[in-house]
Amino acid sequence: MRVGVIGVGCSRFGRRDDAVIQELAYEAVKEALDDAGITQDEVELSVVGSVNTRGYELMPAVPVNEYCGFAGKGPLRVEAACATGAAAVYTAYTSIASGMADVAIAIGVEKMTEVDTATSLAIGGRAGNYLWEFHQYGTTFPAYYAMHATAHMAKYGTTEEQMAKVAVKAHRNAARNPKAHFQKEIAVEDVLNSRYITYPLKLYDCSPISDGSAAAILASEEKIRELGIDDVVWIDSVGYASDTSNMTNRESFVGLKATVLAREMAYRKAGIEEPVKQLDFATVHDCFTIAEIMAYEDLGFCRKGEGGKLVESGETELGGKLPVNTFGGLKAKGHPLAATGVAMVYEIVKQLRGEAGELQVELRNNRALLHNVGGTGHFAFVMIFGR
Amino acid sequence: MRVGVIGVGCSRFGRRDDAVIQELAYEAVKEALDDAGITQDEVELSVVGSVNTRGYELMPAVPVNEYCGFAGKGPLRVEAACATGAAAVYTAYTSIASGMADVAIAIGVEKMTEVDTATSLAIGGRAGNYLWEFHQYGTTFPAYYAMHATAHMAKYGTTEEQMAKVAVKAHRNAARNPKAHFQKEIAVEDVLNSRYITYPLKLYDCSPISDGSAAAILASEEKIRELGIDDVVWIDSVGYASDTSNMTNRESFVGLKATVLAREMAYRKAGIEEPVKQLDFATVHDCFTIAEIMAYEDLGFCRKGEGGKLVESGETELGGKLPVNTFGGLKAKGHPLAATGVAMVYEIVKQLRGEAGELQVELRNNRALLHNVGGTGHFAFVMIFGR
Repeated sequence: MRVGVIGVGCSRFGRRDDAVIQELAYEAVKEALDDAGITQDEVELSVVGSVNTRGYELMPAVPVNEYCGFAGKGPLRVEAACATGAAAVYTAYTSIASGMADVAIAIGVEKMTEVDTATSLAIGGRAGNYLWEFHQYGTTFPAYYAMHATAHMAKYGTTEEQMAKVAVKAHRNAARNPKAHFQKEIAVEDVLNSRYITYPLKLYDCSPISDGSAAAILASEEKIRELGIDDVVWIDSVGYASDTSNMTNRESFVGLKATVLAREMAYRKAGIEEPVKQLDFATVHDCFTIAEIMAYEDLGFCRKGEGGKLVESGETELGGKLPVNTFGGLKAKGHPLAATGVAMVYEIVKQLRGEAGELQVELRNNRALLHNVGGTGHFAFVMIFGR
Repeated sequence: MRVGVIGVGCSRFGRRDDAVIQELAYEAVKEALDDAGITQDEVELSVVGSVNTRGYELMPAVPVNEYCGFAGKGPLRVEAACATGAAAVYTAYTSIASGMADVAIAIGVEKMTEVDTATSLAIGGRAGNYLWEFHQYGTTFPAYYAMHATAHMAKYGTTEEQMAKVAVKAHRNAARNPKAHFQKEIAVEDVLNSRYITYPLKLYDCSPISDGSAAAILASEEKIRELGIDDVVWIDSVGYASDTSNMTNRESFVGLKATVLAREMAYRKAGIEEPVKQLDFATVHDCFTIAEIMAYEDLGFCRKGEGGKLVESGETELGGKLPVNTFGGLKAKGHPLAATGVAMVYEIVKQLRGEAGELQVELRNNRALLHNVGGTGHFAFVMIFGR
């Protein structure tokens, strides 16, 4: 059973004191419904993704579904840390592919700015490892990725300048995306001169704490024909994997094994052997600049250890061989946890339809990749889309 | 693609100060793995259900999977209030039926006794309706079901004695279930003389606040053959529905519309027209005694309004025409939210295999029903199993 995306929506990301969680969700839901040209009546199933960092709502699917007009539709909420968005898309996808629903909506929504930054970092640290690394060493979330960065620097000679270029690229794209959290361009020097959060990661190497939502409406091929929709972005394949949360048990810090495993699953099913040639662009999980560099390698965009050089080459910029994070990435578009994975679907659909305005990539293959990670690879999803 | 249950496990329910959440989960997981005769290696996907009432773990799937040996397996956690267990089974089921996995485990786990009762009731009230009923009127969770009870009494003449009989039956079964929270039989007078929590519901009309876990391992028919497993309980059909959480928007209080809709979906797919004749027994969501009476009616075990008479007739006792909640139900076995729906699968598998000891039902059709509700019908799942 083929499953396609028939409508997408995305809220403005950033500090959203103007909206409570259900209003924020509806901002994306309304756009997605309008985009698909359907109403709530056609949707059979609503999957709400929300990590709910503050505990603002114990069971967030209830108010979100109620407010968005899906009270009679939704049987569940999903959570997979920062990969919650992709997990919601996964659940909507499997619900349709298994024949349980013909039309399903995946909603990702998060209000994070209500919590102070220190709390968020502590929560992130707990997400990184519950067993003892946070409690024993006070390891916050940036510290985990700092370990990845230092390992990568030591083994492959990756530099702080190369990492900075990921941030510069992200800000350049985000500055042209009116929904992005950050709207200003930055230079390599700005990154290098920003204060250290945890060596070697500086303020501008880190994605921000954002509020935001995104929604994607999925449907079965049969239903798509019945609805007479002919502009569809298909989900060609879905890969998932996970890994130990205990960093001390990891084989290596220079990449994420979960990404590699999820990639293998997704590429095998979609027949991807040379991603740079076969894909038009990719959205990857750049919660920190080093994460994008590792993703290049783990996803096979370059050889292991050459991620720093790849960003330096400019080939992942708009106009390059394989543009990455064309809407600004987690780094500059913002990272409202559960919204992120669904917002990647939004970006992919907009790009593959040629609706990305001045951020539009060149379409040769009409295929794109989604890569969403939870924690430091506790969860990973890789999906291939085509139009 | 047929999906079957190849292994089940269930922890002892009750106050479990002796185990943290991941240890509690493993108690059920180990039993399920041993029961299936497989190891963690064969499991491709772990779906963790947890409502996480205290917020003891922000992302409970991570420590649970880590401790249970599924760190490399699990891409998500699900939550659907008190129907979280069925939602986990649903997600494992759709993952297999869609071809995303061949073997998946659904784990439901909850530690509730760490929270004081008043907090639990408040949380329940928020689960009942987030919009304003809790905040405006202080409506706790028993108060919602009390509204159902008074409506049912007013319209159909249902009595407190009839409700008490649901509790007496539950305790009688639980007294023979070593894993149940309550191990003692009670009489109708005990229920009637217990203190009112919220009229007409008394202490013994309410399910307790319990810790517990349950696990069910599901597999595709192809994989089951490959593993050489020949004793399988099949999932014949799955139905789901939901309803507004805003009680003021409900059409009626004498039943749960979500149950009716989920039943219609499940019965249609499984060809159930006369449930009392076609099923051997049922597990229904008896969070309060009135809930079991409404479930009889909403599931078509009797006509609307005759649920009180049905329990009075004794036909839902062991030995009756359609035994219900043979292991003691939420009422006496206990109700650790996310564990409940998965524990229903445990009960169904044990019964259909003839492994229920002195609680064994008579098997004529080798079919059984699962009914798991979240909130007051915000979520509902109905599933039909067969062996």
